[in-house]
Amino acid sequence: MACYVQKFGGTSVGSLERIQQVAHLIDRTCRDGHQLVVVLSAMSGETNRLTKMAKELSVAPDDREMDVLLSSGERVTIALMAMMLKSLGIKARSFTGRQVGIVTDGAHTRARISRVDTKRVQAALRDGVVPIVAGFQGINEASDVTTLGRGGSDLTAVVLAAALKADTCFIYTDVDGIYTADPHMVPSARRLEKISYEEMLELASLGARVLQTRSVELAAKHQVPVEVRSSFQDGPGTRVVKEDADMEQVLVSGVTGDCNQAKVTVVGVPDQPGIAAKIFGAIAESAINVDMIIQNVSQDSLTDISFTVPRGDLNPAISLVKDLAKAVGARTVEINETIAKVSLVGVGMRSHSGVAARMFATLSRDGINIMMISTSEIKISCVVEEKYMELAVRGLHKEFGLEKSATV
Amino acid sequence: MACYVQKFGGTSVGSLERIQQVAHLIDRTCRDGHQLVVVLSAMSGETNRLTKMAKELSVAPDDREMDVLLSSGERVTIALMAMMLKSLGIKARSFTGRQVGIVTDGAHTRARISRVDTKRVQAALRDGVVPIVAGFQGINEASDVTTLGRGGSDLTAVVLAAALKADTCFIYTDVDGIYTADPHMVPSARRLEKISYEEMLELASLGARVLQTRSVELAAKHQVPVEVRSSFQDGPGTRVVKEDADMEQVLVSGVTGDCNQAKVTVVGVPDQPGIAAKIFGAIAESAINVDMIIQNVSQDSLTDISFTVPRGDLNPAISLVKDLAKAVGARTVEINETIAKVSLVGVGMRSHSGVAARMFATLSRDGINIMMISTSEIKISCVVEEKYMELAVRGLHKEFGLEKSATV
Repeated sequence: MACYVQKFGGTSVGSLERIQQVAHLIDRTCRDGHQLVVVLSAMSGETNRLTKMAKELSVAPDDREMDVLLSSGERVTIALMAMMLKSLGIKARSFTGRQVGIVTDGAHTRARISRVDTKRVQAALRDGVVPIVAGFQGINEASDVTTLGRGGSDLTAVVLAAALKADTCFIYTDVDGIYTADPHMVPSARRLEKISYEEMLELASLGARVLQTRSVELAAKHQVPVEVRSSFQDGPGTRVVKEDADMEQVLVSGVTGDCNQAKVTVVGVPDQPGIAAKIFGAIAESAINVDMIIQNVSQDSLTDISFTVPRGDLNPAISLVKDLAKAVGARTVEINETIAKVSLVGVGMRSHSGVAARMFATLSRDGINIMMISTSEIKISCVVEEKYMELAVRGLHKEFGLEKSATV
Repeated sequence: MACYVQKFGGTSVGSLERIQQVAHLIDRTCRDGHQLVVVLSAMSGETNRLTKMAKELSVAPDDREMDVLLSSGERVTIALMAMMLKSLGIKARSFTGRQVGIVTDGAHTRARISRVDTKRVQAALRDGVVPIVAGFQGINEASDVTTLGRGGSDLTAVVLAAALKADTCFIYTDVDGIYTADPHMVPSARRLEKISYEEMLELASLGARVLQTRSVELAAKHQVPVEVRSSFQDGPGTRVVKEDADMEQVLVSGVTGDCNQAKVTVVGVPDQPGIAAKIFGAIAESAINVDMIIQNVSQDSLTDISFTVPRGDLNPAISLVKDLAKAVGARTVEINETIAKVSLVGVGMRSHSGVAARMFATLSRDGINIMMISTSEIKISCVVEEKYMELAVRGLHKEFGLEKSATV
C-alpha cells in the first residue's frame, strides 16, 4: 500500500463538472488500495473575484483580512469535493489549513510554514478516511488564518507529502507535464519524462507556472518525489526527482522565453566604489525584484549600469532610479520595455562545456543581438529584443535537439 | 459609553454598495463613542448559490461538509467589512465563529450553542477594536465548523449581547421594524414602537421572518433588549423588550396570515384510547412539523382527526398518514392544500376576555368560515380558506383598531 498526495489546481476544480471528474479520479486511486491525501485549490476565477471585491472597497486591503477573504475559496472546494466523494461511497472528510495542522509565521498573504502537525490527518488515514485538504492556507500562532502566497497549494501538498513520507506527491494541473519549451511557442516541444529538482527550480524561477518555486525547494530538501500530471487526461506526466546519471547525459533539458521583462540602464555613472551598492540597496529596500545586472567597462571614469526587472515593477523602479541617478551624479536613465529573456536549463551543463558558445552562435546565426548575459551552474540566460524571442527559443530548441527524445 | 451589538442580515450586506453604506453606519456609531460588536450574515443569495452547487454534486449532501461550505459565506462579508472599515480609519478586525468563541454541540447544520468564550472579543474591545463577527457559525468540541440553522446570525448577535451584557442588540434588516400586520397585505399597518418578548416569539413562530425564534427565546431568557431596525433608512425601529404595563393595555398587538399550511384529516378513526398517540407519535418521529390538531366529537364510535402541517411537509405526511390510517382501521384520508392560518397576538389577552368571540364575530360578518381554532395565552389562531386570508387579516386589523396608535 503506497501513500500518495494528490493536489488539484484551480482549473482542475474550476466547475462542478470538473469536481465530478476529479472525484472519479480520486475514487480510482482509492480503489487501488492506496492511502491518499487530497489537496485542493479554490475554483479558478474565485481568487480574482474576491480580490476584485476587496479592491473596490479598499485601495490597499488589509493583509490579515485578505487572508480571511481568500481562504474562503478553498473551503468551498474541499466541502464540495468531500460531499461528492461521500456520495460515491468514499469515506472522505474536509480539512481546513488549521485542521490539517499547518502553522505559519505571521506574514499575512505570504506566510511561511513554520511547522506541520499531522496528528489529525494521520488519525483520519488510520481510520481509512481520505482527507480533503484546503491548500494555500494555514494558521499563525495567534490562531488567525494566513495564506501562503501564489501557488501556495503546491506548497501545502509538498509539505504534507514530506511530513507523511508519501511515496509521491502528484500535482494535477491543466497540462500533462514539463515540456522542453512552451508548446505554444514551439509546436515540436516534447514532454519530459523526468527532470531534476534543480532544473525544475530554474524553470520555475524563469516563469514556468506549473510548480511554485518554494514547493520545489522543499521537495528537493526532503527528497519528495513529485509528479506533474494532467487532470484533464489520463497518462503519465513529468517526474521531478533527484538528479541521476541519465540526466547528466542530456546537455539541455529545456528552453524558456520570458517577455515579462524590462531593462533599465543608468548611463554615465561615476566609476567609484559603493555606487552600485547604493543603487541596488535602495531598489532592494523597495521590494523591487531585480533579475540580471550588467556593468560595462568604464570609459573616462564613467560606466553604464543595466538591470532587468519584471514589467510590473518598472514604474516604481523608474521613479526610484531617476532619483538615485541624480543623487550619484549619473548622466541619464534609459528604459527598454521591449526585451525578452531566453534561457537554457540543464544539469548536463555541469559536466559539458561549450553550451554557452553554441547558444551565442545559434542566436548570432539568426541575426539576434544579445543585450545581456547571465549564467548559473545549470542555466544560461540571454536578453534579446522581444520580437526575436520566439525565433530564439525555436532555434535553440532545434540546435540542442530537444524535439527528439535522444540525448545530444 | 454604551456597549452595542449590531447585526446586519444578508440583504444589508448584499452588494459592495450595501457593505459601504453599512460601514458608514458603523462608523457613525463608533464616532459617538460607543463600544461596538458587529455581526454579519453572508451576502444575500450566497447561501442559495452554495447550496445549489452542493445539491448538484450530491443528492443528500453531508451535513458536516455543508457547514464547511456555507460557513465560507460569512468569512467573505466579515473580511470585506473589516477591510472597508480599516480604510475608513476604524480599528476593525474580523472574527470567525471559532475566534469569537462560540462552541456548539455536534448537530451539523442546526447546532445549538453550548457555551461562549468571549475572551478574544473582550480583549479586542479593550484595545478599542471593533470585532466584525461571522454570524451563523460556531465550532464543536471536535474543532469542526458548525452552523446554527436558518436565521442563525440573529442567534449569534443575541448570544454575544447576552455574554457581553450589551445595552442593546440591534438587528438591522430590510424592514424598519415589526408591524401590526404585513404591510403588503394591510397598507394601513403600523410599525410597533415596542413589543414584548412573548409576543415577538408568537409572531416569529407564526412565520414573521424578521427575527429567528430561538434568538427571541434567548433574548427573553437573558433580558437582552433587542431593536429591529432598517439598514436602508435612518430612524427608530421596534424595540423587543420585557412586557410592561402599557402593553397590557393593548388588546391585540398584531395580526398575521400564514398560507404556507395544509390540512390533513383522517376520517372515520375508531374512537379508542391510544389511537391519536399512535398517529402523532409516528409523525413526530418523521420530523414532520404538526401545528394545530383537532379531534371531532365522535359519532357511532368513529371520530375525525385533523391537523395542519407546513406545505413543504405535506407529501411525506400524506404517505405516512395513509399507512397509519390503514393500520388503525380509519376510513380514509382527506387533504386540503388551500387553507390559511390567521392569528391575533397580544399580551393584553391575558387580562382581557372576549377577544376570541370578537375575532369569530368579525370573520363571520365577512362570511368567512372557521375550520380550526387554536389558542394560547396570548394568541388566537383560526384556519380559514386560503382565498379569505387577506380579507380576514384586514378585517381583524381594522376591528382591533391597529391602524391607529391609540389603545382600544
